[in-house]
Amino acid sequence: MAARKASEGLSKLVGDEVQRWGSMKPTGVSLRYMMEFGSRPTERNLLRSAQFLHKELPIRIARRAIELENLPFGLSEKPAVLKVRDWYLDSFHDLRSFPEVKDKADELAFTQMIKMIKVRHNNVVPAMAFGVQHLKKDLSPSFVPTDFEEIHEFLDRFYMTRIGIRMLIGQHVALHDPDPEPGCVGQINTKMSPMKVARAASEDARSICFREYGSAPEVSVIGDPNFTFPYVPSHLHLMVFELVKNSLRAVQERCMDSDKDALPIKIIVADGIEDVTIKISDEGGGIRRSGLSKIFTYLYSTAKNPLEENYEGVHQGVTMAGYGYGLPITRLYARYFGGDLQIISMEGYGTDAYLHLSRLGDSQEPLP
Amino acid sequence: MAARKASEGLSKLVGDEVQRWGSMKPTGVSLRYMMEFGSRPTERNLLRSAQFLHKELPIRIARRAIELENLPFGLSEKPAVLKVRDWYLDSFHDLRSFPEVKDKADELAFTQMIKMIKVRHNNVVPAMAFGVQHLKKDLSPSFVPTDFEEIHEFLDRFYMTRIGIRMLIGQHVALHDPDPEPGCVGQINTKMSPMKVARAASEDARSICFREYGSAPEVSVIGDPNFTFPYVPSHLHLMVFELVKNSLRAVQERCMDSDKDALPIKIIVADGIEDVTIKISDEGGGIRRSGLSKIFTYLYSTAKNPLEENYEGVHQGVTMAGYGYGLPITRLYARYFGGDLQIISMEGYGTDAYLHLSRLGDSQEPLP
Repeated sequence: MAARKASEGLSKLVGDEVQRWGSMKPTGVSLRYMMEFGSRPTERNLLRSAQFLHKELPIRIARRAIELENLPFGLSEKPAVLKVRDWYLDSFHDLRSFPEVKDKADELAFTQMIKMIKVRHNNVVPAMAFGVQHLKKDLSPSFVPTDFEEIHEFLDRFYMTRIGIRMLIGQHVALHDPDPEPGCVGQINTKMSPMKVARAASEDARSICFREYGSAPEVSVIGDPNFTFPYVPSHLHLMVFELVKNSLRAVQERCMDSDKDALPIKIIVADGIEDVTIKISDEGGGIRRSGLSKIFTYLYSTAKNPLEENYEGVHQGVTMAGYGYGLPITRLYARYFGGDLQIISMEGYGTDAYLHLSRLGDSQEPLP
Repeated sequence: MAARKASEGLSKLVGDEVQRWGSMKPTGVSLRYMMEFGSRPTERNLLRSAQFLHKELPIRIARRAIELENLPFGLSEKPAVLKVRDWYLDSFHDLRSFPEVKDKADELAFTQMIKMIKVRHNNVVPAMAFGVQHLKKDLSPSFVPTDFEEIHEFLDRFYMTRIGIRMLIGQHVALHDPDPEPGCVGQINTKMSPMKVARAASEDARSICFREYGSAPEVSVIGDPNFTFPYVPSHLHLMVFELVKNSLRAVQERCMDSDKDALPIKIIVADGIEDVTIKISDEGGGIRRSGLSKIFTYLYSTAKNPLEENYEGVHQGVTMAGYGYGLPITRLYARYFGGDLQIISMEGYGTDAYLHLSRLGDSQEPLP
């Protein structure tokens, strides 16, 4: 098995090639650049793109593999984390053992290979969550939340780079689509309607809510339906889905507790010059100000942990609760293209989430 | 003149008594403590309160006088700042030269004296603003905003202590009221209705708006009209007034620019267990995310400066613009009793301000 091989030879590797590549500086790209570059997906450009990724991906992957080796509190030794590290090492080897990309045939083979890498890493987030959970169990009751700041910062960096790696691979793969949707450049829709995406994501969240509770509060979306801007719809969908899911759960549980009618969730889409802002407001009772700092950490999930011993089966179905990483990861997606996520709660009333998306698209990827 | 005398003898003084008192630790009190103590304003308690202030006020005043002497960029030498420093030194002397408070007659004289101190310091905020303005003029164009972080932090500490000093004096004085309003303990209303105060403050802000623009947007206040909690109505009034004033200005100027109808401002009062939250929402067009960090600084007022050469005449009339200190000072008032102020804007749409007030009242004064 590749994973076992990789881990056996690790110390030598980390001392050598991984270390060498990990010390190189990654090159960030902007949404605007991806859009402009991808608008001409000629053979020549696809070749250039593959050549760039052939050099760029091993740098990004090696940097994270090294970090995975050096986590505090023995997190690096947890089986789930070792497994993730092996995925990174395997992908590093796949990339480094792939010969120079010289022509169309090479380019197609390379594209297949990186597509496989993306699949290999599908379960990185739940696997890491499992490793952290394991660590927490080991350390409690001596567990002091501030001890975990270092781990929190590592996870933020780690997941942010993961978003970047998957965006680069996904974009390169998508540029091969022989019949793209009008206005689409790979994964980017140059005329994305945020209202349309927000509506679709809300409906998806509502159907999960229906499945779990037998009913779901209404969601109204207010804004200019004709307004569009260039963005990655799958990212926006993921973010709005997560935020609406949280709001639905809060409203649903509040109205079950109190026998009151479920109050609708309100989404406002505002188009500014710098930002597009999407506000998701609920009257689900809110949370205390003293608890608000916890909602963005990876270490405080209040929901029951749905991870069984085997974290590789987690994509069998999204649940309302998840494993508590929804908000910090949503914020990373927002920040990846220069935006942000802010959440303010009014205890006893409800919560407002503000998703700011940079409209200009020229902020570079944040590359830790 | 007392002020001149004080400043002449300064270096000696700072070396001696002011220094000695400034090195003592101030004693913070909580809203709850003030309320419980003040609920029995017996002669004995008023005497104890005066004795406490006789020791506490010189500590707090000396600490700030020393800081006023040591500001960076030569701010300490600006005439307006020297004047403020002299007010502090004069008040320090008044307190230190007042003999021990032993009986009712002493207590009444002491109360008169501290009432005078409060009046002496009425114009500290505009005077300091004037000094900072002066400094900015001197330093530009070499003016680099980050240079001013130290000054910003000083002003935050300085104004926070000022709120505390004025609260202590005001409370002691108010306890002498022979016929207090029902439910009132000095300046604290144990049954303050936040909706009622928010309505009154909104109406006050609207009348300023009327005076300046000839019209004023509507303000609706939503919440439970029977809900009350112990707080200082004058503080809440000041905060809501400031926030509503900002919202009115934004809405008013936006509708003048666009010939659209002025959209109403909405206030929601939420009563949680830990906090009472007051949200003030407008559709005044909002501000850019990149400009949001500036709204809490003392150094970026966008409004025209209403301060003439003589800053002592500033209380002749509140204007819609002010000198740009409204938001940072409102936040200090909120924080003084353990609350906070957060502002989030949706560029192209509007702004939401969240005033969190600690409901429990047992947070200690933050004493820098």
